[in-house]
Amino acid sequence: MKKIVSPAEGISHRNSFHEHLLATARPIWGAILSHPFLASTADGTISEDVFKTWMVQDYLFVREEIPFLGVLISKAPPHLRPPLADAVVTLNRELELFREQANAAGISFDGISMSPTCHAYIQFLMATAYGRSFEQGFTLLYGVEKAYLDSWVRVKSRQRSRSPWQAFIDNWTSDAFQDYVAWLAETLDALATGKSEADRANMEELFLLAARYEYLFWEMAARGKTWPV
Amino acid sequence: MKKIVSPAEGISHRNSFHEHLLATARPIWGAILSHPFLASTADGTISEDVFKTWMVQDYLFVREEIPFLGVLISKAPPHLRPPLADAVVTLNRELELFREQANAAGISFDGISMSPTCHAYIQFLMATAYGRSFEQGFTLLYGVEKAYLDSWVRVKSRQRSRSPWQAFIDNWTSDAFQDYVAWLAETLDALATGKSEADRANMEELFLLAARYEYLFWEMAARGKTWPV
Amino acid sequence: MKKIVSPAEGISHRNSFHEHLLATARPIWGAILSHPFLASTADGTISEDVFKTWMVQDYLFVREEIPFLGVLISKAPPHLRPPLADAVVTLNRELELFREQANAAGISFDGISMSPTCHAYIQFLMATAYGRSFEQGFTLLYGVEKAYLDSWVRVKSRQRSRSPWQAFIDNWTSDAFQDYVAWLAETLDALATGKSEADRANMEELFLLAARYEYLFWEMAARGKTWPV
Amino acid sequence: MKKIVSPAEGISHRNSFHEHLLATARPIWGAILSHPFLASTADGTISEDVFKTWMVQDYLFVREEIPFLGVLISKAPPHLRPPLADAVVTLNRELELFREQANAAGISFDGISMSPTCHAYIQFLMATAYGRSFEQGFTLLYGVEKAYLDSWVRVKSRQRSRSPWQAFIDNWTSDAFQDYVAWLAETLDALATGKSEADRANMEELFLLAARYEYLFWEMAARGKTWPV
Repeated sequence: MKKIVSPAEGISHRNSFHEHLLATARPIWGAILSHPFLASTADGTISEDVFKTWMVQDYLFVREEIPFLGVLISKAPPHLRPPLADAVVTLNRELELFREQANAAGISFDGISMSPTCHAYIQFLMATAYGRSFEQGFTLLYGVEKAYLDSWVRVKSRQRSRSPWQAFIDNWTSDAFQDYVAWLAETLDALATGKSEADRANMEELFLLAARYEYLFWEMAARGKTWPV
Repeated sequence: MKKIVSPAEGISHRNSFHEHLLATARPIWGAILSHPFLASTADGTISEDVFKTWMVQDYLFVREEIPFLGVLISKAPPHLRPPLADAVVTLNRELELFREQANAAGISFDGISMSPTCHAYIQFLMATAYGRSFEQGFTLLYGVEKAYLDSWVRVKSRQRSRSPWQAFIDNWTSDAFQDYVAWLAETLDALATGKSEADRANMEELFLLAARYEYLFWEMAARGKTWPV
Repeated sequence: MKKIVSPAEGISHRNSFHEHLLATARPIWGAILSHPFLASTADGTISEDVFKTWMVQDYLFVREEIPFLGVLISKAPPHLRPPLADAVVTLNRELELFREQANAAGISFDGISMSPTCHAYIQFLMATAYGRSFEQGFTLLYGVEKAYLDSWVRVKSRQRSRSPWQAFIDNWTSDAFQDYVAWLAETLDALATGKSEADRANMEELFLLAARYEYLFWEMAARGKTWPV
Repeated sequence: MKKIVSPAEGISHRNSFHEHLLATARPIWGAILSHPFLASTADGTISEDVFKTWMVQDYLFVREEIPFLGVLISKAPPHLRPPLADAVVTLNRELELFREQANAAGISFDGISMSPTCHAYIQFLMATAYGRSFEQGFTLLYGVEKAYLDSWVRVKSRQRSRSPWQAFIDNWTSDAFQDYVAWLAETLDALATGKSEADRANMEELFLLAARYEYLFWEMAARGKTWPV
């Protein structure tokens, strides 16, 4: 089994673009990884309501991440289209996981709708994919997935007993998911090579925004934030 | 001078699509129009800080509404392109108004950045314009502008003395702006004619979301909400 | 084995939208199906050069159809995303078929570029997918695939002996491909249901344009048309 | 009055990006500028039918260039949005010119439709604007407008007597149009500064394609090319 790399190790030397991004985002990343949602999932004290709120909202997020990948495919150079198409297949399988787990937990996905944070995050993905260059959209994809890998690795590393939500924890700490995120990092580094300073600054800005939205997503789940009107 | 129509009157008979939208959104619209930001702007008790927060964020909103209109122009039928191009020219003039007023109030627009609410709202506009049909994007434009007209008309109708921010109040209650919003309503009604129930339901959903974001925008300004990380 | 349906049969009764489209396009469809490229492929008299021109251009077409599907996925309702993602996987497999056949025939795909007709056709797909509604983009997908099914079914029905290009003939007359095109037709009918007359007229216009481009594609291959400058 | 610069002069030294593009495109540019359509417009021997074909197709082209500019506005940095919005206003005025001239010449624009070349060219503009980066779309705008400036300057420089189509010749050789194209060139140079080699290669490829489509457009007009089916 693959050694679980601590997120902190990954940003110690700064000679690649993805490492630079992680170093720049370190304070936000720290806030994400120390969020009570993750700690309470790890130690089993999380309330069922809070976890179910997350399940509903993350199901909607994953479902609407597929259109985001669709636009990325449309702008990708030919050699990156097959792995991105595979990522869509993986997301479709993840939706199955959500449906199974929801079913087992007695949660219905009928008539659910997005919280403001989930809605805003998805709009951000779509607006970026459509309106910006492929490299910029891809940076966002890396941010989204890297934050999930690191968040769930953090949960797993702090677990002392099996969780009722183990299937989710295992999903985003699996070898397959780690390989995927490693591929995203490598590919991002290749895409950033030779890009102008202005282009890299735009990519960095988008990465930091993705990190901020990740933090807000845990906040939304933990506090059950909905539309005030 | 044109009689200022009370927003409530506009939704009394429901035989047009825009009236249907306003009737459906009535509770959210009520929350918007009774927001403390508007009441305190009208009676002069609004703090300078709060108003300046709004100025900075609304300047960014107006600036980034232009790309939204750009995508609408790209999808519009030929006869709607010239009036939408005129709307871009008007927004550019509005940006001038903001810069003059900011200058007069000693506010600098250097280095400003979007609050989460402003960012989310703009992402919503762009994602909709790019990803949805022209009719759906246009519905959003109507929602944004109608909310502004009604909000500032509410302020003006409650004013008992001149405001330091009179230029903004006058801008969005002017005859020209009222005519523009009336044209948006008529055009929307024409666009909705003959559309399928599913299409109209999508348009309604987007209109309600626009109303929700409008409410959140006043909230953000009033409470000075920024990124927590 | 599935009975090969003559294209003519498919348009005899006109109670569905896809049948209406085929009936409207009948003259263009006739020109496509009686194109010398198909007749000479069927009877084995096609020159190797002409077939190789087609192989190169159709490889590029299939490759660039994937971004088109990417945009369709981004605009599709949730239940249509998985089958469209499967279509991308199929196209990736088709690219493999092209590479194998090219390799066997001693054709290199290095440094190839699009003829004007192939370039124009792909631009048409992409501009439609990005700029128009999902229903309109989907209509184009149906046109592209239905024309291919009918064209290759025509070749197969006229074959008296095995072709050196049998792998292509078999690919687009397979049960799997017939099922896919049947699914496209059904789905298109469902999408058209309840659409306004104006929307259906737009869909029809796009379908006829797709048919025209299909005809031009065979012409381009048969005549080896390239950029004059 | 501004000196009309010969197109050849503009590409003598190669220290800017737009000059590099023009140098690379020189053979295609030569074919454009020596096209019989331009020569026969200059010496007055052009047939009325040929010129009218061009008028109809170019009217449609200009009309559909506005959506192209709409997408460019949506992706432009803030400081480039106002001049691009002005360009839309100019195109709307150009459409008026077409309508006046058509009216004077007894041409009706009712029921006209795009030739294959005009359709393909517009699809190319739209697909590029939506799918590619702003810099790439802007390169295309420069190519389109620079080809028109140089073509009509060539006509004007060869004229010995007033043309019945003088209004068009004057329009695209005016000081205002020359200033616009000069601004496009400068702005393109600024956009290209610091871009990666791969980005600049993509921009160059798009510029060469624009030049090829310009040549095909004159060909289409001169030969009255329409859809074969």
